[in-house]
Parts: sequence; C-alpha cells; structure tokens
Amino acid sequence: MPHDDTKGLSRRGLLGLAGAGVVGAGLGVGGAFAVNGGGSTSTSNDVASTYPFFGEHQSGIITPAQDRLHFAAFDVNDISRDELIELLRDWSYAAARMTAGQAAGEYGPAGGPYDAPPDDTGEALDLPPGGLTITFGFGPSLFDDRFGLASKRPTALIDLPKFPSDALLPELVGGDICIQACSDDPQVAVHAIRNLSRIAFGRATLRWSQLGFGRTSSTTQAQTTPRNLFGFKDGTANLRAEDTEGVNEHVWAASGDGTAWMAGGSYLVSRKIRMTIETWDRTSLREQETIFGRTKGEGAPLSGGGEFTDPDFEQTGRDDAPLIDDASHVKLAHPDTHGGAQILRRGYNFVDGNDELGRLNAGLFFISFQRDPETQFVPIQLALSRNDLMNEYVRYVGSAIFAVPPGASSSSFIGAGMFDLA
Amino acid sequence: MPHDDTKGLSRRGLLGLAGAGVVGAGLGVGGAFAVNGGGSTSTSNDVASTYPFFGEHQSGIITPAQDRLHFAAFDVNDISRDELIELLRDWSYAAARMTAGQAAGEYGPAGGPYDAPPDDTGEALDLPPGGLTITFGFGPSLFDDRFGLASKRPTALIDLPKFPSDALLPELVGGDICIQACSDDPQVAVHAIRNLSRIAFGRATLRWSQLGFGRTSSTTQAQTTPRNLFGFKDGTANLRAEDTEGVNEHVWAASGDGTAWMAGGSYLVSRKIRMTIETWDRTSLREQETIFGRTKGEGAPLSGGGEFTDPDFEQTGRDDAPLIDDASHVKLAHPDTHGGAQILRRGYNFVDGNDELGRLNAGLFFISFQRDPETQFVPIQLALSRNDLMNEYVRYVGSAIFAVPPGASSSSFIGAGMFDLA
Repeated sequence: MPHDDTKGLSRRGLLGLAGAGVVGAGLGVGGAFAVNGGGSTSTSNDVASTYPFFGEHQSGIITPAQDRLHFAAFDVNDISRDELIELLRDWSYAAARMTAGQAAGEYGPAGGPYDAPPDDTGEALDLPPGGLTITFGFGPSLFDDRFGLASKRPTALIDLPKFPSDALLPELVGGDICIQACSDDPQVAVHAIRNLSRIAFGRATLRWSQLGFGRTSSTTQAQTTPRNLFGFKDGTANLRAEDTEGVNEHVWAASGDGTAWMAGGSYLVSRKIRMTIETWDRTSLREQETIFGRTKGEGAPLSGGGEFTDPDFEQTGRDDAPLIDDASHVKLAHPDTHGGAQILRRGYNFVDGNDELGRLNAGLFFISFQRDPETQFVPIQLALSRNDLMNEYVRYVGSAIFAVPPGASSSSFIGAGMFDLA
Repeated sequence: MPHDDTKGLSRRGLLGLAGAGVVGAGLGVGGAFAVNGGGSTSTSNDVASTYPFFGEHQSGIITPAQDRLHFAAFDVNDISRDELIELLRDWSYAAARMTAGQAAGEYGPAGGPYDAPPDDTGEALDLPPGGLTITFGFGPSLFDDRFGLASKRPTALIDLPKFPSDALLPELVGGDICIQACSDDPQVAVHAIRNLSRIAFGRATLRWSQLGFGRTSSTTQAQTTPRNLFGFKDGTANLRAEDTEGVNEHVWAASGDGTAWMAGGSYLVSRKIRMTIETWDRTSLREQETIFGRTKGEGAPLSGGGEFTDPDFEQTGRDDAPLIDDASHVKLAHPDTHGGAQILRRGYNFVDGNDELGRLNAGLFFISFQRDPETQFVPIQLALSRNDLMNEYVRYVGSAIFAVPPGASSSSFIGAGMFDLA
C-alpha cells in the first residue's frame, strides 16, 4: 500500500480531526504506542498531563508555563490559497494528536505501511506529553496579496516600530506563521516542531527557530517565580491566569476590537535578547541590584518588603535619592509607568553554544501576549529601550509579531476564521 | 571589603574544599539559599538527589544518566604550571559546592559584599541540583611542553585517527580540558558551566560547547532505553553500572595499565554527529529498520524476540539473506563484531537551531567512556565509518578525546596526580 506522508494527511481531512483532538484524551494510539513514564521530566505539571488543542482559546497562552520551549517561524512557499488551507488543516490534525499524547499521524513508526515513511518520526514514542501545547500565530507578511488575505489583516497586528536599542539580525526577524511548542520535556517539544516542519515540506520553510530551556515567567499563581540568566527573578508582577478580569482586559482580543475573526485570540510579540553575561558577571552586586531595582537573592523591591511587596517609587534614601532608580528595570517596566498597561509574559532562557571568542551565546527569548501591542508592548519597550540601565548588558537580535487566532472547534482548523470557513 | 572573585577562590584553598564537598551534603549554604522544588524537573532521579564530587572515581561516568547535558571544552591560556594548578583547585572547589546543591562560591547573590561581583551568578539559586555531576578530563594538547606535563601523558590517551567518514569542523575538535555537566535540570547544568567558565576568566577560554536535551543511553538497568532523533531506541546493549565486572574490565583504568596516576580514571571520546533528519524522514520504515537492524517501535532485533533479545546474526530469511543486514548499525556496533570490545555510552540528542535552508541542525552528541580507546572505541568506529548503512544520514562534525582522571580526595583537587601532588 503506497502511502504519501504529505498528501495522506489532507485526505483524512476533517473526519480525522474530529476523532483526534479530544480534551484530556488518553495516551497512546492503540497498542503499538505503549506509554511509560520512565524517560521523561516533570515538575509542577504531571508528566501525563494534556491540554486540549481545540477550544475557545488556543492553549499555550494562559496555560501554566511549561519548562521547555521550541519556537519556530515559517515562511509559506509559493503555494495557493487552497494549499495554505490544506497545510493549516494538516497542522491542526497533527497538533491535536500530539497534544493528546499520540503520534503525529495515523501510521506511526510501528505497524504502518513499511514501504512508506512513517507519519511520525518516533523520538517521542515512549514519552508522556508533559503538558505539550502547540500554539499557532500569523505574521503581518501572511496578509499580503499572495493568499487573498490582505483585507483580513487584524488592525492590532501592527508592524513593530524600530526601537532605539535594536540590533536586529534579518534572519531572526519576522515570519509568515509561528508555532510555539511548550512541554516539560524538551524532546517532546522538539518532536512537535520537527514533525510539523516535516508535514510542511514543500509548502512552508523554517525561517528561524529557538530552543529555550528555562521558563522565565509564571503564568499561574501556583508557579514560583523563575530566574533569568542575570540571576534575577523575572516576571514577579506578571499577569496570572487566575486573574480572569485582567486576562480578559489585557490578553484576549474581543469581537468589538475591530477584527471579528480574531475574537478569543491574542497577539504575540517575541524578542530574542542576547545577554553579555561575561560583562554582567564582573559587575558588582550593588550595581546589579540598582539596575533591576530589586534584591538579587529574594527579588524584593529596593524600597523594602518581600518579593510580592509593591515597589514604592517615591521612597528615598540618603541625599533624597529614590531607593529605586528611575532608570531601573522594575520602574520602567511597571504598569504604573504606562498608565496601567500590562502584558502576559512567557519567556525562556536560552544558550546557543558559544561564539569564537569563547563567550556563551546566552540570553532571554522574550514572549509576551497582549490584546493590543500598540498600547501595551510598544510603550513599555520604548521606555526600556531608551532608558533602561540594563541596555548596557543586552542586545536585541530577533523580533517578531504574530496574530494568534482563537482556538478551533474540533470539526475545524486553526485560522479557519480568516478564510471565512469557521 | 574589596573582593576579587577570581583570586579569592584560591586563597580559600584546600580548607574550603574539605568543608564543601560532602557526600550527600544538605542543600543550601546557610539561610540565604533557601531551596524549593517548584521550578525544576525530575525523572528517575529525585530532584534533590546529589552525587559526591570527591571519591575514588569521578561522578558522571557510571552515574545514572541525567536528562540534560552542558559539555564544554576549554583551551588553557598562557599561564604557568602553578597557575594551572590553582585553576584546577578553584574549579574543584566550585564543582564540589555546586554538586552539593550550594552556590559556586562563598559570597552569593544574597548577602555577600555589595561592591564585588557575586561568587555565584544566581540563576540556579532556587533550584535543587537534579543529580548534578561535573566531570573533568584532559586532552592530548594539555600534555605538550607548556606545563611540564609531557612525561605524564597517559599511554591510552591516543590521538584519534582520521575516520573515513569524518567531516570535522576545526572549531568543534579537541580542547585542553573538558567539563561535562549533567543534571536533570538544564538550567542547573548551564549554571555549572557558566560559573566554571567565569572562574576561569583570563586563565582558560571556552573552545566549544554543547547542550544536550535528551539522554540517549541508559547507564543503569533501572533506566528505560531512550530514543535518538532517528526515532530509534539507542544503546540497548550498553554496559550498565550494575555490571561491576564489565565496568572494571571496560571502563576504569587500572594501575597496571601503564599510567599510574590515571588508575580509577577513564577515557572519554566525544563525537558531534549531525543527522540529516529531513532526508531520514522521507525514508521508508522498511529502510530505516534495515539500517538499524532493529524494529522502530519496540527496538527488537530483526532476527526476532524483544528489545533485550540477543540479535542472531546467523538467522536468514528469504533467499537465504540474513535477517539482520551485515552493514546494519546493530551488527557493526555489536561486541561480537569486535572481539568483545565494549564501551559505556552516555550520549545526548541536540538541536542547535536551523540552517539557512530551514533544516534543523539536529543530531547526537555521542559520549563514550572506555579504559582503552585504541582497542575499544577506535575499532568500533572504524567499522561503522567504513560500512554503516547509516552513514548516508549522518555527518561527523566534532571529535575529541580526554583522559578523565580518577576522583580527588576531599583534601585534594582534580588532576593532582599528574602534578605528583595527589
């Protein structure tokens, strides 16, 4: 039985989707895919935990931040509108299966036709999903005239301005479509991106990608605040998933926002931030704490109290100087500095090997979700890029923005709304 | 109190070492470093598990393979023999502390002198060690005439031959000293290499480094066999730590081996193997299984049975062809093919982003330990590089060999024996 792994997916079409994406579905796809927990990692999330792929919102936004990330930006090849729809259908089908702990396709590495390539590459076969979420987004370039989508471009999907301290590398910027895969097991996240990339062969090409090994944000109150590679707790004042009112106000796009098909979606900004950690590591503890405006050990604001005490920007010390520097990170990023503007952060630390001088290529892959980048991310980043004391130790090398559509229903696919197919 | 983070370490010297490296030491260094388990990962190993730094053998060789790796090769700068000794003392001091779950140095991010850089960079402050091991090795180039060590070069520390299928990149080859950091939490492994690199500033420079996210070998019987990025179980026939006789015969150098100071040590070979996974993923299941000589699902030899059934290379099928191809990976790598030669494998999968054509830079960072590379690793690799069906899908881009000295006693330091200081 000849079996074409690319075309086969679409032939299965919507019926396949409906069967695959079940909220909290059991693990394994028949007896061939026995699951054992011996090889994987866990933490706050249960190793076997699954999040639904289908639903009102996409998972991977307010979902408790998993420990590991594989993020990929694709450019769509010279294909037709119908072929783009088919690609999104195939991706939705595979994503629904993988997030439920199944192989990417029906014919896995054990059993399927022997004279065809398997529908799943196999390296996550024995691994529980570790809370895998797969989140899709669409960049501004997808809304040019190639696919008849120009009129569907969301008004909130702006082109990001050039920020004063940007030193962007073109190969790390933009992309037609992004896929964010998060799991507590990096092998599961890598497996997801690798299989989605395989499925896209000939239809979309990987533009840039990023692995992250340490989450730097807590998206729920139950998660402790993690540390970035400057050694500081990061995102103490982040929006939390339990703050339904805050999430509705700051994260989810609403039907009244001007782009009906985006209601229930959000907007993702990613920024790849290299840290010059060798220089940072030779900076005094006092200087480091001044730059952050918090203590390094506990993460308490320099105005006093504990980690979760609100910073008091008015309080002064010797010579009437404010205890928290006006150019500190905590001051410039604080909602009070931006008329209450908040973002939901979901960043990850990274180390991409080292450069030819023996310095680690390390830093922060910043991700934020917001309802309106123009009034949320942009003013915060403008303030930081102009004045932040930290700028001496960071370099912004990658940047992208994506419209993250609402979740799909189990009989549909991601992005159907922009084709008027929802 | 001025405080120089480089010199300070050596001044503390041996007294510091004796106090720091305690087998199974408790977590935290005083109240400033409270430990909570909220942010980290675990699996077979307990998140809070620690392995001793001091002892007869270095940890990280037969230790149950942790899930994550950060491996670094350093070149020693133009320093004196005494300064090299001082560096190894400083590294031993910091490694003993970190493997015990403490900060790299006495003055951490909380409390220490404010006008000096902290002795620890802080990003692992709240994280349990996740079974962290730090393993040191010395490359052939360390035994030139710079440090008066030429007469101390172990006879078993050969220069690796050029293998037929090598396509080595000079920047990924060799190194004076290697450090292998393994932990179930990548942030802990990265923290270890980053702090050891910081401590070496001005004395040794990072030459190349590698992050690995998925172990590909089981070093104990309790560990399930993990999968490489070809999707196959790897290392089913690996030596196991419980096989004391096998480990003594194949892994540990003995005093009669010709280099007395290496007794209780071993020899590490690392090979960075890029996989052309996009090509592999378009290969039929039948072809993939022929190449490995095992089934993809269960990992059973094609001669029948289950994963742990011994392969029967004599058994034939249709046309009297052997069921396991003579050029299959399992046949060429099997001890029977090499007069019983075995190695202890400890490899990791990696993904280093993608190339400009959108292909993932993915593969296997192979590590093996053996008592005598010339009679163990070399003949196996020669057979593989000449005949392995898998060669079409791999490219050997990095290669190195290191003498891994025995463990140090808690009043000494790693490598003391080669300075006649043990």
